[in-house]
Amino acid sequence: MTLLADLLSTVFERRYRRHAAGAALDGRPLTELADALVGTAGETSGLALAEEILTRFDTLGDDEKLEFFRYLATAMNIDPEAVRSSLDEYERDPSKATYRSFAAAAEPARQEMIRRLNRVPGATGALVQMRADLLRLGGKEAELQALDLDFRHLFASWFNRGFLVLRPINWESPAHILEKIIAYEAVHAIDSWDDLRRRLEPTDRRCFAFFHPSMPDEPLIFVEVALNSGIPGSVQALLAEDRNPMPEDQADTAVFYSISNCQAGLASISFGNSLIKQVASDLAAELSGLKTFVTLSPIPGLIKWLSQEDHEWDIEQPDQMKALAAHYLLNAKGRSNMPFDPVARFHLGNGALVHAVHADADTSDKGRAQSGGTMVNYLYDLSRVSQNHEQFANTRDVIASADVKSLAASASLSTTQER
Amino acid sequence: MTLLADLLSTVFERRYRRHAAGAALDGRPLTELADALVGTAGETSGLALAEEILTRFDTLGDDEKLEFFRYLATAMNIDPEAVRSSLDEYERDPSKATYRSFAAAAEPARQEMIRRLNRVPGATGALVQMRADLLRLGGKEAELQALDLDFRHLFASWFNRGFLVLRPINWESPAHILEKIIAYEAVHAIDSWDDLRRRLEPTDRRCFAFFHPSMPDEPLIFVEVALNSGIPGSVQALLAEDRNPMPEDQADTAVFYSISNCQAGLASISFGNSLIKQVASDLAAELSGLKTFVTLSPIPGLIKWLSQEDHEWDIEQPDQMKALAAHYLLNAKGRSNMPFDPVARFHLGNGALVHAVHADADTSDKGRAQSGGTMVNYLYDLSRVSQNHEQFANTRDVIASADVKSLAASASLSTTQER
Amino acid sequence: MTLLADLLSTVFERRYRRHAAGAALDGRPLTELADALVGTAGETSGLALAEEILTRFDTLGDDEKLEFFRYLATAMNIDPEAVRSSLDEYERDPSKATYRSFAAAAEPARQEMIRRLNRVPGATGALVQMRADLLRLGGKEAELQALDLDFRHLFASWFNRGFLVLRPINWESPAHILEKIIAYEAVHAIDSWDDLRRRLEPTDRRCFAFFHPSMPDEPLIFVEVALNSGIPGSVQALLAEDRNPMPEDQADTAVFYSISNCQAGLASISFGNSLIKQVASDLAAELSGLKTFVTLSPIPGLIKWLSQEDHEWDIEQPDQMKALAAHYLLNAKGRSNMPFDPVARFHLGNGALVHAVHADADTSDKGRAQSGGTMVNYLYDLSRVSQNHEQFANTRDVIASADVKSLAASASLSTTQER
Amino acid sequence: MTLLADLLSTVFERRYRRHAAGAALDGRPLTELADALVGTAGETSGLALAEEILTRFDTLGDDEKLEFFRYLATAMNIDPEAVRSSLDEYERDPSKATYRSFAAAAEPARQEMIRRLNRVPGATGALVQMRADLLRLGGKEAELQALDLDFRHLFASWFNRGFLVLRPINWESPAHILEKIIAYEAVHAIDSWDDLRRRLEPTDRRCFAFFHPSMPDEPLIFVEVALNSGIPGSVQALLAEDRNPMPEDQADTAVFYSISNCQAGLASISFGNSLIKQVASDLAAELSGLKTFVTLSPIPGLIKWLSQEDHEWDIEQPDQMKALAAHYLLNAKGRSNMPFDPVARFHLGNGALVHAVHADADTSDKGRAQSGGTMVNYLYDLSRVSQNHEQFANTRDVIASADVKSLAASASLSTTQER
Repeated sequence: MTLLADLLSTVFERRYRRHAAGAALDGRPLTELADALVGTAGETSGLALAEEILTRFDTLGDDEKLEFFRYLATAMNIDPEAVRSSLDEYERDPSKATYRSFAAAAEPARQEMIRRLNRVPGATGALVQMRADLLRLGGKEAELQALDLDFRHLFASWFNRGFLVLRPINWESPAHILEKIIAYEAVHAIDSWDDLRRRLEPTDRRCFAFFHPSMPDEPLIFVEVALNSGIPGSVQALLAEDRNPMPEDQADTAVFYSISNCQAGLASISFGNSLIKQVASDLAAELSGLKTFVTLSPIPGLIKWLSQEDHEWDIEQPDQMKALAAHYLLNAKGRSNMPFDPVARFHLGNGALVHAVHADADTSDKGRAQSGGTMVNYLYDLSRVSQNHEQFANTRDVIASADVKSLAASASLSTTQER
Repeated sequence: MTLLADLLSTVFERRYRRHAAGAALDGRPLTELADALVGTAGETSGLALAEEILTRFDTLGDDEKLEFFRYLATAMNIDPEAVRSSLDEYERDPSKATYRSFAAAAEPARQEMIRRLNRVPGATGALVQMRADLLRLGGKEAELQALDLDFRHLFASWFNRGFLVLRPINWESPAHILEKIIAYEAVHAIDSWDDLRRRLEPTDRRCFAFFHPSMPDEPLIFVEVALNSGIPGSVQALLAEDRNPMPEDQADTAVFYSISNCQAGLASISFGNSLIKQVASDLAAELSGLKTFVTLSPIPGLIKWLSQEDHEWDIEQPDQMKALAAHYLLNAKGRSNMPFDPVARFHLGNGALVHAVHADADTSDKGRAQSGGTMVNYLYDLSRVSQNHEQFANTRDVIASADVKSLAASASLSTTQER
Repeated sequence: MTLLADLLSTVFERRYRRHAAGAALDGRPLTELADALVGTAGETSGLALAEEILTRFDTLGDDEKLEFFRYLATAMNIDPEAVRSSLDEYERDPSKATYRSFAAAAEPARQEMIRRLNRVPGATGALVQMRADLLRLGGKEAELQALDLDFRHLFASWFNRGFLVLRPINWESPAHILEKIIAYEAVHAIDSWDDLRRRLEPTDRRCFAFFHPSMPDEPLIFVEVALNSGIPGSVQALLAEDRNPMPEDQADTAVFYSISNCQAGLASISFGNSLIKQVASDLAAELSGLKTFVTLSPIPGLIKWLSQEDHEWDIEQPDQMKALAAHYLLNAKGRSNMPFDPVARFHLGNGALVHAVHADADTSDKGRAQSGGTMVNYLYDLSRVSQNHEQFANTRDVIASADVKSLAASASLSTTQER
Repeated sequence: MTLLADLLSTVFERRYRRHAAGAALDGRPLTELADALVGTAGETSGLALAEEILTRFDTLGDDEKLEFFRYLATAMNIDPEAVRSSLDEYERDPSKATYRSFAAAAEPARQEMIRRLNRVPGATGALVQMRADLLRLGGKEAELQALDLDFRHLFASWFNRGFLVLRPINWESPAHILEKIIAYEAVHAIDSWDDLRRRLEPTDRRCFAFFHPSMPDEPLIFVEVALNSGIPGSVQALLAEDRNPMPEDQADTAVFYSISNCQAGLASISFGNSLIKQVASDLAAELSGLKTFVTLSPIPGLIKWLSQEDHEWDIEQPDQMKALAAHYLLNAKGRSNMPFDPVARFHLGNGALVHAVHADADTSDKGRAQSGGTMVNYLYDLSRVSQNHEQFANTRDVIASADVKSLAASASLSTTQER
């Protein structure tokens, strides 16, 4: 019954918000409303103001949105003099009052504005959308980048792992959630409801997503998992339409074959690490036969890097491509000595290691274009991820299996010879 | 089915936390673990560290807790020099990088530590408890008061109205929630499960609480409501054991007769205003016969103030007590010209007005001791609360009905005569 | 939490059934197992027997199923001599014991067998499927028809209106339910998930289904509703892909434009009457603007009847078709003086009346073939359905609006002239 | 969301029923309404009639109820002549039509009346209550006993194991369910909410109940379980207020120490067998450490039987009492050679065996009065219950452990000597 209560109140709150949106609008400019929202002491008129700001913002064109963002970035920025004087005061007399004054001065008013906007039931999703607009429109403008840091600071606190809820996504999930899974899949496109069903319904398939309680209809990130016998070396085989599903309790390996972020407005708020570990841990608890947790991942930067480095390659020669891919994963480095490959950075940073490399593993146009069809398994050895993570964080050395190392060694030689 | 998923994942997460708590403990001092938690770049070991800190903190004695708090307050405080130099840098060259450095310097490391502790599933409640300890132990120590401001800053963001869920509490609610309602009732004590049932089950009774999704078993604040015919003048009559409940659709008045905060660790995070307005609005939508929303409130500061001011009173003379109460509510002021009475401050700040005063209205020992048995109705006129709120915030003038004003006028005269 | 419990237990029970199905099978013939099931006093071995019978039946070919049905129909039939002697005994000495003996003798053993099969968690759906097989295979064999009467007798009791649950079906419903809606739609085919969504998601569309608690994944019957301004005369307009949805609170008319039974095994167990009235009543309570409840129904028997009666018609002449349709609906009678048209029988039997007839209203191939494109509105006047129902049940006179009557009058004349 | 829908519809349906109850009542006598209900062909007026009958019945005094029952028992009984003639017809020409006529004649009209009453949402509970009235008032009247057999026949079908839902009852269950657990506990009374909590909240306690989906607020039967180390010999120790709960995963034994039926109106509809086996099976799946499933049961007939048989006993001599109890359990027989003790009949009939007997095991007044403080463990060996059940059903021999047998042997000797 309390559950009913919950749901009813949620439904009510959504209606409330919608209803309020229809109310007569205040004639003042949006920036003035924003000032008033931060200035208002009490909550009463604040809530109505916040609703109006959110409603009005929704209807703005891009230029007007940009103008509003610039107002927040400048008129609602910190005042350096106020920071300095309150800091002096605090140093002279470190009391509750002086600390409070300093803290208030050191935080730009726009942070408080964003928090007050969030008091409106249902506003969290609108604020995530607002940041998506900012990222889309802001470009390299330094002031807008600073504004974005404030959004990001608040979102990192609100979308803290402790507040997220992990939900399985399956063929019994609501259609309005499933259509978002179709839309957001970023690695191996889902081309129909039948395709979706092949990834959700068989006994040897799983999907999990993180949700935030204030955005119950919006997945934040999701991972697709295949339960398998052994470590797979080809995504075509894994997703074949005519394959025979296996009983879940006969699987020994869980393959994370696709991870997709869903919300542009949550860029740089990292969920993937938590998601993979939580899912691996849940699956291990549910299915005692699972011994291996591994990805089947694209190598999105391979061809780009080969071109950039003037290395030669021939995608018709699978053995050569495998060796090149292994070499690339182990040795190609970018800024701060981090791996050049973004997917490698993600999994190595999580404490996984490079386990095996495969040629002809993704024969889609996209797969051939970005990696000559090669793919890689990153292995999550739950007993060693912490240690791997520390080692990688300290040394930036790519941890890999002996096989991959020797493969890379052969490749690097032949490339050198060719030059 | 997604709901099931949710609940399962919640259950899992609680077990997870409990299980982790039993893990072998790290031998390092707690303060060293806290430093490590803030220093760790990645999430992997951070989560294990956070779990250990929370688990260890739980087992500390008060002296050790105080020591830990002092460490946070000093070693994890801001570094004024770092603030100044990063601020100079930012003023010289306002870029994303310099703003980020300033923001990092201006926020004490302990805030980041608290956010990282909160990554552990189920940690939010533990952190609320940690602040309750701080408030209990911290006293007037300036540094600990500053630390508390950091907790409060984070909690205000996390317990933002937009994240809270309103739930009805009724006789079909889970027993483990109901026993907390019994424990937390702060105005008119609930002395048994039968007493509780009399406040929840009849058709003319309601109760509502705010919950946070990360603390689903802990009400944050709750309000008890009686549906009534007319505005009541006595809590004895309202709660009489042998009264006849009325059909809900015959009520014209909703009486908020008790509001209780539940979490010591959420002191100064205000929910009551939102709660009353949300409940009034929900009830108005559900029961079209309701025209009046009113409290039946204690006057906790009356006797204290009369003593302090050397006024004379006689609780056997109801008319005199009423007049004194009216005078007190309208004229007794404290700091910043705010009303002396804390309950008055709360309701007037919400935009309610003083509607009527009653003698012999609370004849319990507590009621006689604090207010000579008088009580007061604060009226929430939904069409005027915004306006009242603004007026009170600007002028601090107590808004009251004509009756109460003339009652207060008579009182103030007689008191003067007596002196 | 009790809800969780519920769901968990349901999940458990399904697994339980599946697991049991894998158990080693008893070697005895199915008919022997059936005898043993009815003979076994206690529940213990009964449950295992029942599981085995259900599992084995599933794997049978049609001939074997027919053989099993014939066994139930003959070997498990009543024994007339036993009925007579127990009846004599009861008449001689009407006691608890003699009544019990008579009741046992008068009910064929196969009824008890079906009840015992139903003890297996999840068996209800399997039994509905078993009856679907019986109806498909049984043909006109008198003994199998008698067996079917026993199934029907039990199902009428188990699928009693008081045990059914009404659920809205919408775009937030689970995908595995929605795909059944697509599959079971029997009036206006749903040709894709996009088409389904157009019938569920817009503010002016609703869908409701009856479920039985023991078959939570299987809708029994569902109705699709369009909220409209006025009474519609064309299903093309109603389902147009490019129409603009209207706000639900501006609708004055609820149009039941499709009702589909889902379970072949529940033939002759009537749900439609209850469903329409419950939905009309719920919608009236939710949307106070709704004043009219009406169908937009096919006239499936029109062309067939015109052919059979040697009437002439020309579907290019809409006015003539309308008149013919009106005449047909009012005057074409079949067995027991009931209307010839099955849809007319259903709605008139529910207490609706023939309100209006439209030409060019269903221009699909099916619509043109069965009714020359005509359709009809049956009107549910909630204040008169009881009275209409009684009148129709007693007199079999078709109740119709004045317009339809005069239309029918014109038609009948012209047809006569033509002959 | 479908869950919400469910719950909403349930809530709606309850309101619906209550609302209807307030409608203007039909002036005809109740018996005439009952006739009309059975006679009405269609559902429309039937539903209103059914609601009125249920509402009116509720307000009757006992004499009027009895009169109504007598009407059902006589006027709505079978007509032997109709049975005979339809049976003759069926034998002459076994067709669908003649079978239907016979089946209709052989079933008394009151069964159809009860089924039609059950169409009203929420009626199932009211019908269970109606039978409770019948059992309370009917006495030994043969016609009313026959009427009761009809109720029982229908209830056995409706409360079929396959329709029941097993729910855990715990400290998070709704209070209105828990207060029924307190009220219905029939073996070891629960004397307060604190006592209840001691039986539900500790990690080593469980409680489970069967519910019917149409009576979601009413447990049908529940069992209380203690997880223990070893087989206990005293209920005082098991329920001691100051005992230390053990971690659930350290328990090796599940003790069923109390089973209570909740609904007088479901007398003779057996649930206990299913409940114990389901719970044992669920617990075994959840807690792999559990090896033994055993009861700690009262011996309610011991003292009564000893008196009746003129045996001597002295409850101060525990060894003698144990031996007498063992002898009684193994040898005291009643009707049809079944054990004299009702609790023994229940567990032996389920396939359990008499495992051990204890003196001083229930020192409550009730325990001393009925069994001189002795108690017994019945052992459920899941691998042997089927076989035990069959053996007991065939031979009526009480299956017992060697210890209990030798104990019984010693007792029977000494008793003989004393006589």
